[in-house]
Parts: sequence; structure tokens; C-alpha cells
Amino acid sequence: MIFLKNDYSKGAHESILKALERTNDEYNDGYGVDVHCERAAEIIRNEFACPGADVHFMPGGTVTNVTTLASFLRPHQAVVAPETGHICVHETGGVEATGHKIIHVASADGKIRPEDIEYQIRFHEDEHYVQPKAVYISDATETGRIYTKDELKALKETCEKHDMYLYMDGARLAVALTAEKNDLAKEDIAGLTDAFYIGGTKNGILFGEALVLVNDGFKDDFRFILKQKCGMMAKGWLMGVQFCQLFTDDLYWELGARANRTARMLEKGIREKGYTFCQDSDTNLLFPMFPDEMIPKLREKVMFEDWPYSKDGYSAIRLVTSFATEPEEVEGFLKMI
Amino acid sequence: MIFLKNDYSKGAHESILKALERTNDEYNDGYGVDVHCERAAEIIRNEFACPGADVHFMPGGTVTNVTTLASFLRPHQAVVAPETGHICVHETGGVEATGHKIIHVASADGKIRPEDIEYQIRFHEDEHYVQPKAVYISDATETGRIYTKDELKALKETCEKHDMYLYMDGARLAVALTAEKNDLAKEDIAGLTDAFYIGGTKNGILFGEALVLVNDGFKDDFRFILKQKCGMMAKGWLMGVQFCQLFTDDLYWELGARANRTARMLEKGIREKGYTFCQDSDTNLLFPMFPDEMIPKLREKVMFEDWPYSKDGYSAIRLVTSFATEPEEVEGFLKMI
Amino acid sequence: MIFLKNDYSKGAHESILKALERTNDEYNDGYGVDVHCERAAEIIRNEFACPGADVHFMPGGTVTNVTTLASFLRPHQAVVAPETGHICVHETGGVEATGHKIIHVASADGKIRPEDIEYQIRFHEDEHYVQPKAVYISDATETGRIYTKDELKALKETCEKHDMYLYMDGARLAVALTAEKNDLAKEDIAGLTDAFYIGGTKNGILFGEALVLVNDGFKDDFRFILKQKCGMMAKGWLMGVQFCQLFTDDLYWELGARANRTARMLEKGIREKGYTFCQDSDTNLLFPMFPDEMIPKLREKVMFEDWPYSKDGYSAIRLVTSFATEPEEVEGFLKMI
Amino acid sequence: MIFLKNDYSKGAHESILKALERTNDEYNDGYGVDVHCERAAEIIRNEFACPGADVHFMPGGTVTNVTTLASFLRPHQAVVAPETGHICVHETGGVEATGHKIIHVASADGKIRPEDIEYQIRFHEDEHYVQPKAVYISDATETGRIYTKDELKALKETCEKHDMYLYMDGARLAVALTAEKNDLAKEDIAGLTDAFYIGGTKNGILFGEALVLVNDGFKDDFRFILKQKCGMMAKGWLMGVQFCQLFTDDLYWELGARANRTARMLEKGIREKGYTFCQDSDTNLLFPMFPDEMIPKLREKVMFEDWPYSKDGYSAIRLVTSFATEPEEVEGFLKMI
Repeated sequence: MIFLKNDYSKGAHESILKALERTNDEYNDGYGVDVHCERAAEIIRNEFACPGADVHFMPGGTVTNVTTLASFLRPHQAVVAPETGHICVHETGGVEATGHKIIHVASADGKIRPEDIEYQIRFHEDEHYVQPKAVYISDATETGRIYTKDELKALKETCEKHDMYLYMDGARLAVALTAEKNDLAKEDIAGLTDAFYIGGTKNGILFGEALVLVNDGFKDDFRFILKQKCGMMAKGWLMGVQFCQLFTDDLYWELGARANRTARMLEKGIREKGYTFCQDSDTNLLFPMFPDEMIPKLREKVMFEDWPYSKDGYSAIRLVTSFATEPEEVEGFLKMI
Repeated sequence: MIFLKNDYSKGAHESILKALERTNDEYNDGYGVDVHCERAAEIIRNEFACPGADVHFMPGGTVTNVTTLASFLRPHQAVVAPETGHICVHETGGVEATGHKIIHVASADGKIRPEDIEYQIRFHEDEHYVQPKAVYISDATETGRIYTKDELKALKETCEKHDMYLYMDGARLAVALTAEKNDLAKEDIAGLTDAFYIGGTKNGILFGEALVLVNDGFKDDFRFILKQKCGMMAKGWLMGVQFCQLFTDDLYWELGARANRTARMLEKGIREKGYTFCQDSDTNLLFPMFPDEMIPKLREKVMFEDWPYSKDGYSAIRLVTSFATEPEEVEGFLKMI
Repeated sequence: MIFLKNDYSKGAHESILKALERTNDEYNDGYGVDVHCERAAEIIRNEFACPGADVHFMPGGTVTNVTTLASFLRPHQAVVAPETGHICVHETGGVEATGHKIIHVASADGKIRPEDIEYQIRFHEDEHYVQPKAVYISDATETGRIYTKDELKALKETCEKHDMYLYMDGARLAVALTAEKNDLAKEDIAGLTDAFYIGGTKNGILFGEALVLVNDGFKDDFRFILKQKCGMMAKGWLMGVQFCQLFTDDLYWELGARANRTARMLEKGIREKGYTFCQDSDTNLLFPMFPDEMIPKLREKVMFEDWPYSKDGYSAIRLVTSFATEPEEVEGFLKMI
Repeated sequence: MIFLKNDYSKGAHESILKALERTNDEYNDGYGVDVHCERAAEIIRNEFACPGADVHFMPGGTVTNVTTLASFLRPHQAVVAPETGHICVHETGGVEATGHKIIHVASADGKIRPEDIEYQIRFHEDEHYVQPKAVYISDATETGRIYTKDELKALKETCEKHDMYLYMDGARLAVALTAEKNDLAKEDIAGLTDAFYIGGTKNGILFGEALVLVNDGFKDDFRFILKQKCGMMAKGWLMGVQFCQLFTDDLYWELGARANRTARMLEKGIREKGYTFCQDSDTNLLFPMFPDEMIPKLREKVMFEDWPYSKDGYSAIRLVTSFATEPEEVEGFLKMI
């Protein structure tokens, strides 16, 4: 089988496993207060040019989103998010379960714009409404798109104007920042957000996301909320070890670039065969449209997901490449269409 | 000033105050377990033809909605509601504060349709999504529209097909059931919902809504949740007394009909003067459009609310009549336009 | 029947009802933003010597406690309370339902002491524990006791030392401040708490508690949380009207003093008959012990509650006087023992 | 340094790491729906003789406790737990954050008894109280004690009598079931609980607990709540792989027995030197008392935790052995005292 279903279905890059082996017999303090997490945090602060930021490691994206937003919001406050955002659809109401409304904003490409925020500020006019207080974005988005530096700056300015926080879900930050069209430097992000996370699970490690908490107002209490919302692992150093390795020799960026390379190969090949895409992508998620009768045949030899869009006898599917996708898999796929 | 701003800004019908006086020196058991609440519940069970239902009295609509839905839903379950629904916009996230997502459905008239429910069922496909389990409707809606009996039946059937609960917010049930176009009998409602409430606050009493809990599955525990969610009043009999009076000599229906009568006078008069409405209304909420320059002048002598719709130099306002609106007020208004 | 069961089972003082009648035909703005609430707030600020405080009216004690504490606490923070406190036992977990732990402190008299707080601060040592951030007290307590001014000062100092908030439940503030042994002036309270509420429901009105919010940090957002937690009434002015009346001609204090007078009559009479009390009381709640065989006979003619304490053939009961208790009822009771 | 601080500070048994390596290049379906989790579940069902149970894997104990109890309880329901229970003190209010009160029961040995449950049932008498609906126990307890089979049977019977659920936290189940004094068979547990978890993190794997969900009533929805409460890992198969290995050749039991063996060595050695213990232990947690002046010296060469108990110039410390504790470490420690 050719695997183009998602970017979290293979273990870790081999160097990551080796790092875990190397440190397996050490005694380390529990709950993320250990030398590996400390070193990983320092590496990340350097890499992302944010010497004053706090860094916290959590085992997955949902718990990172839920914990960070729970930390940011008072009871009556809400987060504004594009309707395709992970927190809107794929976290089984995790944010609402902490008591906060998510204000869904329609978005074709998964991005949110300053005018969307402005509209929500006007609409939520008094204390009978929830108070929009944070904005959730993802880079890359769940539909494979990225933010330009100017777009991110404009969002941050809008948030500041209304005393709102900007939070970036970076589950796929590696493919975003290594995308061809990207003009956002890794050093820019901390200055343009109140918090963001660096996704590890979808970019070559066994598990782990690194939350970079920039806003000083939430630092003191964060570990309390981290523990309460179940994001604190007993053997937290496992994430420290993995992230240290991930940022050794630019592995993180190389793995992201690798996923983008196979995605571009795939995209180019599909276009050359005359097929189109139901939406553009800048990164490792592709949404090609194939004749309805072709899709069951693909399914026999390729693992992928359906995508809810059809037109004129064609239907969209979702193809995803990852750090582990081999060029041979792409070639194999292209031969089938 | 002419008051056309809302239907909850005057005290109570005089007979209601008299009933409170009459019973003021009695000793009554607290927390809604008293002879007046018992009698009011019995009257309501008769009036709405639901001998097996439980009836609970709460001081307002928000607490009634929040408590009932919190009772119906398990942690991962959500309620589907038209985006104009009171729970979506005007309760400061009360439902979300109990941990549940509200799935907003676009709706021009404030009503929800079977296909809206079907769509949400298909969209929320697995455990990564919240599970749609209840449907919230209001009759009349927040935009003044009512459900036909067939519409309500179709909703109930759709809910049953998907093992979902149907809950009706009846803050304005009196105007709904006494509307000219209404074909829904009061005796129909219990059979077509899992719970509904009979609004008192907006129809002539000081405070109080009567929740009619039809679904047997939630009866045993309801008073626990009622207490926890702050809907249980120490002197609960005050609501029993008011509801007994409200259903004496059909006062409830007469007050609703009265609000509808002044609304129809107002609507007819506005149309006769050549103005239009930005949306239709079946009940006591009207949304006429007036020239932009006229509105500030109206505001000098009339209390009303703006409505967020403008076109071609005309803007919409919201006019509301109530049991306490005098025909003279309507005439006074019509003279001004 | 002689009624000595509780202090919330009769309607309102007659002047209160008259005030409601007088204002019944007015149009008032909804949701507590009206001239009566404004005037009542001003009266209360004068009466309690806190010109900068905000005053909010809510229909009951549970919603007042839940809303205020939800406003004060971040997700990981807890409130310390005596185990007999209303929030610990009689609110069906209302506080926990907003996500916060209550740290129960053992207490024979319903009071909490500085050393209790100090102990909890030491015990909750790091981020694996909740963080004690508020202290809940009631004056009078649920067992009829009051705080001296020195006791309250010591609590406030302890709270300040640990950056904690002090919140006083004043459901029975009227009997506390008019108790014989009381040395706490009404003008002292705002300076010694972050918030307290002035109980109306148990002292002569139909419903209503007045929260006095002293701490500036929570003022801006309070009405959002008030709405979300269901404490905002549509016809909020009904509480403004009642509180204006309650603080006219010192009625509030007179009604509290009246409950205390009949309580002292009752206490003296019981002692003179040779019976003892299982715990002392400063106010309107009494806990006499009577022979086990006498209690069923009392029950035939007196309404009261059992109290879970027995010894040597004697059992405790709870007797409660209120503003509405007549001296004749006390005499009648004393004749029976 | 000699490490006797806890049982979760070393990586994994070497065979566990090897199993992760072996499977690292496979593609596996995400979120715990994969062949390894399926096989691990089957192994566990056989091992614990519960063919009808569901098994879910979660990365830590806190998330397992929070998720399971959130699944079991309706909004007004509470869990009864010994005051030393992990959910009471060391989860930063995780259970309360889902809206539920924990009713703390005083307990010297960390165990709960039928009479404790009976008392709470009587105390929580009506809808003004939370409703005790589940009982939380841990085996071994946080103070190293174990339940006998008769004790567990009696608890289960009491729970059934009151229609309550019994949940066992098995973070240290391996040391409990391999303790010298243990008479509870692994095959007994499913029949005597509604759910229990098999702790992996504290017994030789990198991370992972296996929840065995016995009660049919909560099976259908569990994965929704698992996702919402952040217990579902993207690469869930990592836990399946580890648990398959852990139950190969009885490794799980051997590792537990190993921790017990070094604990008994340590206990015997300490007694032989004439020291006593502030409380008894059946498993791998020991609470010896040493002269106050000795403790700082120990700290120079041994990692351990203080324990809050002192008497007559002696203070208690907590010593913990694990699967990774070497007999040499024990000997080294004994030489120091």
C-alpha cells in the first residue's frame, strides 16, 4: 500500500529513537522539570529568537490548544477561530468543555482576516454576549495554506487594538515555514503572537508539541493549568529529549522540507496528468479531484481520505505527505492516475 | 415616551400582584415544594394535556435553557440551534459554560429545519467531533416567527430518527399560540417535544418560566441540576402563585393575544404609510424600515431598539409590543411616521 | 402550627409589597440597569461606607456565591471554606460545577481561623495541587455564630499576606450585625473583604441579595459573568425597588433585630425550663436538646428541623426565628416543653 | 546518587524500547484504533479474565482518572474518595474542573471502607447536596497499602446497594498484586469494579495506562470523552506496542515483584538498624523515621522526598523503589543509616 493518508501514522525519525535509547537509563526528575526539557526550551528560545519566552511540552495538539486557551480566557470570554480550525471541528468540544464558546468564522482557506475579527467585535456588543478575547489561527492551516508575514502582522495589530490575544496552532509549523511561498521567519513568530506551538507529532517525533508562551501575563500559573488539563506527563523528559534532537542539525526544518518536496512532486504530477484541485495548497495537504470511478480503484492500493466536495462527476480526496513519505510512493501514485 | 422597546419592562398584570398580596402572610415550604407550585403544575399539566409531565419553575429564560440542556447532555454532546437563538447570542455563553458546544445553524427566520439537523448529523461523523444530541428551537422565534404544527412534527420525527431531544424555548409561547397564523394547539406541544417552557416574564408576571419536562429519562435528577445551576428560588411559591393566577380565566392567552393585537395594528399602520419590513413577523416583534433621517426623530419620543440592517437610505428598527402596550401608544407612533 | 423551621418561608414585609405595587406600572430598563437599582446601590454604598464599591442584585444566595467565586478564581484556583459553609453542603456542587475545588476546613462553630488558612497554604505546596486563592466565610454562620471585628481583621490580614481574596456570605447579615454580642460595624465590612453580600431573602423581602463588590479587579467584567451564571433577572428593578425600601427607615436592621429578639426569648425560655443546647448561637438559629420522646409531640404542633446530634436520650433540633416570628409563637412553643 | 525518590523517573525496561524500535517504521492508524492496541486489549482481557470489557490506553494517570469519572457522572453527581487519593490532592483539581465535587473521606491508610460510603449516603440526603455516585480507590494506595479481596468485595457490594460505581486507580497495580500479603487475583478485579486501570508509567514503560472499562453503560460514548479530555494520542499505537510487550512473559508482574523485593530488603534493613516507620506499607513506598540530624546527611547521597510527620526528634521520609531499583542501591542506603 502507498500511504498518503496523514502525517502522524509512522513512528519517529531514527535519530529520535536513538536519543531516547541513549537517555533511557538516566534518572530524570518528573513532570517536565528536568535537564532535557530545560535544554530543549533553551534551544527553542534561541531558534525562535524569544529569550524571554516560557516553553512547555505537551503530548498532543488538542491538549496544547485546550490548555493554552483555558489559561488565556476568563469565564465569559470566547475565542474567534476559522470554522475549519482544529479546535472547531476535531477536538470533540475540548475548548467548550472548559467553558468557553468558540466563535466560528467562515473561511474558504482556513485563514482568518482582520475584518473577521472586527466584525465579531462589533457583533458582540455588550454583556449579554460572550466577549471575544482570543484569536486562534493555525499555520499551516488544516487546508494546507500558510500566512504571509504581512497577514500575521495585520492580525496581531487587530488583536492589540482590541486587547485580544493571538494564538497560533503550529501542529504543521514545519511545513509552513519551509513552504516555497513562505516569507515568515521563524524569528518573527514570537513577536507576532501571544503563544504558539511547534508541532512535533506531525513532524518526525513519537509525540510532543512545544508551546512557546510569550505573553508574560500567563507564565506564573501555566504549570497549574497544564497539570489540571492533563497535559503534564510524568516522564516529561521524553519530550525534552526528542525536541533537543529535533533541533539538532536543523532536523526539524529538514523533515518539514521533505514533506513539502514530496507534496510538490505529487501536485506537479497530478496537474501534468490534467487533473485539478478543489483548493490550493502551500504545504503537504493536497485536495485533487479525480473521476468518481477512479477513486475506488485508487483505494485498493493507496491509503488516503475522502474530502467532502464533488462536481461534475469528479470528487475530491485528501492526500498528505510527511517526513516519512518516499519519492517512490509518489511515483507509484502518479502511475496509477 | 412611547414604549416599544421590549416585552419585559413593565411589572405584572394587576391580578398577579393581588395574588402575591393575598398569599403574602402564609407560611410556605421553600424551594418550589409547596402547594402553590403543586397546583400550578397541575393546572399546566391539564392546560397542555400532559398528565405525566413534571413542571419546574425558574426565575428566567436563561437559567431555564441552561439547566434543561445541562440535564439533557452528556459531556461530549452538543445542541443544534438556529444562529439567532437566544442561547447562541444572548446568554453570554451560558450553555458553553456548562461544557457543551452549540452548533449554530444559519437561519433567516430564526427557525430550524429537518435538513439542517440531517446535515449536522452527517457532518459530525465520529468521536473527533461533538455529538449532536439535542435541538433547541424557540416559538415564537427571536425574530417573531412561529412554527406550524407540521413543521414541529417534522422536527420531532427527525430528532427521534437520530435519537435526539427536542427542546422548545417558549419565552414568547403566549404570542406564538395566539398568533393569527398559528395552527399549533397548546395540547400538541408536549407530544412533540422532550421539554418546553411556558414563558411568564415576557407575558405579564413579575418573573417566572414554567418548564414542562416531558421526557421521563431526566425527571428523577432534575431538581439536583436545578439547584446546582441556580434556578431554584428559596421562595419558590412566588412563581407557583403567579402561574396559578396566569392560568386563571385564560389570562395567559388573553395577554398574549393583546400583544399580538397591538402588533398587528402597528404593522398595518406602518404598511399603510408605505413602509416595508426587513423581515416578516407573525407575532409581537416587528422590523420596519424607515428613512435614516427619520430614525433620530422617532428616538426622541419612542423607546425602541436598532436592528442591524440597512439598505438604500433606509434602516431597520425593532418594535415590540407587550401585554402592557396601549392602543394609544400605537396610534401615537403611527402619527409620527 | 407554630413555625420555627426557617427564615425564608413567609412573603415580604408589607412595605416591600407596597413598594412593588407603587412601581408596577412604570416602564423600567431591564437586566438591573435601571433607576431603582441605581438608587439602591447608592443607598447601600452610603450605608456600608464604601463609595467606590459596585453593587449587583441577584435573586438568591447560591447564584450570588457561585457567580462571585467564578469571577474571582482562575481555573486552577480553589476557595477555602468551613465545612459547614453553604457552598460546601447546600448548593449541590454549584461552585465545583464552575470548575473549582472547595477546600473544606473542619469547624465546630462554622467559622474559619487564620491558622486554617495558613495550614492550607502550606499543604498546597506546588502546581500538582489546586491553589487556594479565596476564603469563603458567612456572617452569621450556618450555625448561628458571628465574627468579631478582630476575627475578621485577622482573616483579612492573612488573606492579604497570601494574596488571597476574602468573600463574606451575608445571607444572614442582618441578624449578625444586630446580635447582642456583635462588635462589627456595618461600615467596617467593605474594608475587610473583597466582596460581601447583604441578604434580603432571609430578612423580609420576596427575593434578592445585594452583592457589594469591593475589589476593583473584578468590576469591569462582572456583569458578563452575572449574566452567564444566570444571576441577571430581566426585571431586575424588582430587586432595586425592594432594597430601596429595605434600607428606608432602617427597616433592614429592625427586621434583623426582631428575629434576634424572638430568638433570645426562645433561648432564655428553653434554658429556664432546664434544657441545654448542643451548640451556642449568637443569632436566630438555636439548637436545643430535648428528650427523645418529647420530639414527636413537638412535631405535631411546631414546624422545625431535626439536627444530627443525640446524646443520652436527648436529641438536638434546629429552631429558627425570622422577622415574621411572633412573640406568641415563642410563648406557645415554651408552653409545650 | 542513590535514587529512592519515586517510581517514574527512569525510562523503560529495555524490551519495551526494543518493541518501539521494531515497529517504528510501520504505518499504523492513528488515535488508538490500530492492530497493536487491539492486540494489547485482547491480551489484557485474557490476563484479567474480562472478555467483555473495553480497553482504552491513555498517556497518564491523571487523564485516566479525569476521563473515566467525567464519563461516569452526571452534572450533580460526586465521587467519594479517601483524602489521600491522587484525585484529591495531586491532580490540581482535574476532577472538579470537569464540574464534579470530590467528597473527601478521612483515611489513615489511604483506604476507604463500606461505612465511609454509608455515612456519605446518609449525609447527602436530598437535592441540595451533591449526589454521591462513584467511589474512587487506589490499589496500591498512595501510602503503599493494598486491599484484600474481602475488602474489595465489601466495597463493591456497598456500591451496588446504593447504585454507585466503583473505580480503581491502578497506577501501582503491579506492586499491589505482587505484594506478599496480597490475596486479590488479577482475575477478580473486573468482577469487583466498574472500571480500573493497569498502570504502566510506574511499572516499566515510557508512558501509558490501560483503562479496563467493565460497565457496559459507558462503553459506547467513551472515545468521545477520551478525545475531549485530551487522553487520545495521535500515535496511540505506541501504547499498544508497549502494553503488548509488558504482558509478554509476565514482564508486568516481574517488574512489580522486583520493586516489592527491593522494598522489603530496605524495610527489613531499616528495622534491623532499629528504626521505625510512621506507617505500614505493603508495597514499594516506605515511610521510615530517622533522627532529624541524620536526614540532611542522607540527602547528600540519596534522592528521596520528605514526608510531613515528625515526633520526638525523628522525622519521616518517603522512600520508593521501582522496577529499576538495584539491590546495590538498597545496600548503599542501609550502610548510611
